[in-house]
Amino acid sequence: MSTEATLRQRLLTPGPTQVPEAVLRELAKPIIHHRTDQFRQIFSQVSQRLRRIFCTQCPVLTICGSGTTAFEAAQVSLISPGQKAVTCASGKFGERWQDVYDVYGIEQVRINAPWGHAIEPERIAQALQQHPDAKVVTVVHSETSTATGCDLKSIAQLVASTDAILIVDGITSVGALPVEMDAWGIDVLVAGSQKALMLPPGLGFVAVGDRARHRLDRSISVHCYNLDLRRWLSSYEKNDVPFTPPISLIRALSVALEMIEREGLQRVWSRTSRLAAGTREGLRVLGLKLISAMPSDSVTGAFYPQTTAGSVDDGTFRAALRQRHGIHIAGGQKGRCGDFAGRIFRVSHMGHISEMDTRAALVAIEAELIAAGHPVKRGTTGKAIERFFNDSVIASHVEEE
Amino acid sequence: MSTEATLRQRLLTPGPTQVPEAVLRELAKPIIHHRTDQFRQIFSQVSQRLRRIFCTQCPVLTICGSGTTAFEAAQVSLISPGQKAVTCASGKFGERWQDVYDVYGIEQVRINAPWGHAIEPERIAQALQQHPDAKVVTVVHSETSTATGCDLKSIAQLVASTDAILIVDGITSVGALPVEMDAWGIDVLVAGSQKALMLPPGLGFVAVGDRARHRLDRSISVHCYNLDLRRWLSSYEKNDVPFTPPISLIRALSVALEMIEREGLQRVWSRTSRLAAGTREGLRVLGLKLISAMPSDSVTGAFYPQTTAGSVDDGTFRAALRQRHGIHIAGGQKGRCGDFAGRIFRVSHMGHISEMDTRAALVAIEAELIAAGHPVKRGTTGKAIERFFNDSVIASHVEEE
Repeated sequence: MSTEATLRQRLLTPGPTQVPEAVLRELAKPIIHHRTDQFRQIFSQVSQRLRRIFCTQCPVLTICGSGTTAFEAAQVSLISPGQKAVTCASGKFGERWQDVYDVYGIEQVRINAPWGHAIEPERIAQALQQHPDAKVVTVVHSETSTATGCDLKSIAQLVASTDAILIVDGITSVGALPVEMDAWGIDVLVAGSQKALMLPPGLGFVAVGDRARHRLDRSISVHCYNLDLRRWLSSYEKNDVPFTPPISLIRALSVALEMIEREGLQRVWSRTSRLAAGTREGLRVLGLKLISAMPSDSVTGAFYPQTTAGSVDDGTFRAALRQRHGIHIAGGQKGRCGDFAGRIFRVSHMGHISEMDTRAALVAIEAELIAAGHPVKRGTTGKAIERFFNDSVIASHVEEE
Repeated sequence: MSTEATLRQRLLTPGPTQVPEAVLRELAKPIIHHRTDQFRQIFSQVSQRLRRIFCTQCPVLTICGSGTTAFEAAQVSLISPGQKAVTCASGKFGERWQDVYDVYGIEQVRINAPWGHAIEPERIAQALQQHPDAKVVTVVHSETSTATGCDLKSIAQLVASTDAILIVDGITSVGALPVEMDAWGIDVLVAGSQKALMLPPGLGFVAVGDRARHRLDRSISVHCYNLDLRRWLSSYEKNDVPFTPPISLIRALSVALEMIEREGLQRVWSRTSRLAAGTREGLRVLGLKLISAMPSDSVTGAFYPQTTAGSVDDGTFRAALRQRHGIHIAGGQKGRCGDFAGRIFRVSHMGHISEMDTRAALVAIEAELIAAGHPVKRGTTGKAIERFFNDSVIASHVEEE
């Protein structure tokens, strides 16, 4: 048995995700100043590439901070205290955005669904009919805590026909799932660096569509300095940033985005979807129950099975995966309206992850479930995903012809 | 003449500053997850080292963002809208902190000094006497835009005897100038990663003293989510962070802080002070006028001289330094109450800078000033700093005996 230190490590957590070698090497380059032509060229290229990956012609702002920083900036820049927002939540992150608006004194029409269930577009339509004065709708495209997607295209379409601005948490969707900002009519789309964009954490992104831009120009009373998107937009127009940016991360981002473009965005989406479907199949044959009624393709979550020895201990199970197999996956989280802590595990499909990484994770999961007393035959999941990936390769070849 | 690409590059801008090789190599290590023992060990070590470098026993919070993010967090977490703050400014950054409080609707007693002049402690004492209801005093220890220091020890002492909380912008002082948080009675001390701490930009730091802690516990009505220091403090107590942190930067920070400790904080302060004094001497013999009446030791600024050919063009001059000598220095900035753009240049002494870097910068500055028509003899500054550094070596040896 290998020790953890000598094993090849595979990071399959839903953020941070694996960072490619070429991106790591870029991080190690000597620092350059941000008020130079060299940096401006990199930044301009990064902005262009981001627009293509967000599927938009509109500005995509690169903000120093976490995904939470970027989403809060979008939230607070597009509504004034006392105004009304429709806020959707069916997991920890949707709940966080509700908490943010609570802090800012925004009146909320809350649409909450049980953890593991998607927000139904009809409920948003109803809320907007009942509250035509709502200024903003917030929705999470891929709720990481419950590995759940939603019908974002329909939601975007219906919000676009109202006066409300749609702010989408695409933190674990942009670069992983099909999400077409302009074609679908999304007003604001937020992402983070440490998910499908294959970078370490430290950057957030806010794409600002025309309707949102118009709202910003009409000068909402924003009560933040650093998070006021107008400040970032006006710098963006000069190919600049308002404050000293994380230069190393932005350089590395340029390399990561180039990798995505070289593979092709559509192919990245297909690969992610294929890994997710393979994982669902691999877990299904192990007799596990998914945590989501509408699984997102960026991350898959499953409940621990009841075993002959009782229940699987989350800490022990994931430590064994790390120590014996070099496999890092996530456990469950706890929120206001749900609690998956200790009850589930989650495997990410975002970014720099191959079929081999996914197979390795499933085979290791099977081995440690068996060790914990789960009654399946060794090799069950391996055979199933072997078959699945072979079949789907053929299927995708056929499609291309 | 070498081309820019083949020249050894020396970054002497007051942020970002040079990042040591060992720190760059750490940035290139494979990413790890932040909810692991491995990261918690690194984070705990970083927090300990930060406390030593801030000269405090109190928590030093590591925040994802720029120095501005960190300072805004301190500003907004310690006062409620409608309350009163004494805000000091004598340069672009002091003015920025006044702008931040304007956005938040804080009543301000503004103490402004002309650019290049230090804020006098007496003026703060007077303001606090006239406004005993002031909740907060903000002051910049080293105003980077004007290369100016202040008598922070006296300011801290006098504010400590009132009910106001002192928030210090130590962004270009912590790790460069003597600043002893606990001994001097500073309540809140803010720094950034890309200055004396020798890291790329992307992290801010907020040290929270006991009086500030007490104020936070009494629950000020903070109207921000991400910037609410209570959230960071409560995570800090569990050796954790509230949001996904910039993992790579924090790992690299650990290496940078270890380097500072190996050299010894007092020695780093002495080195910085020596480089600053040498630079002032080197510019003096060139007949240049410093921009500051009370120069900070972290950065030195000088006005361009009038030459036989008229005035020195800032853009041309600094481009020549980069292209012919690999020397990167900063120009002047523009603020609300002052404008040094195009009129000055600034040379940093913070962080990973040697005597040789400083000599190289001064010799190059002399060469390009001569090229621009400034009438000095080639070798003037070289001889002067040679003498200065040799004399001060002897002086410091004598002192040690």
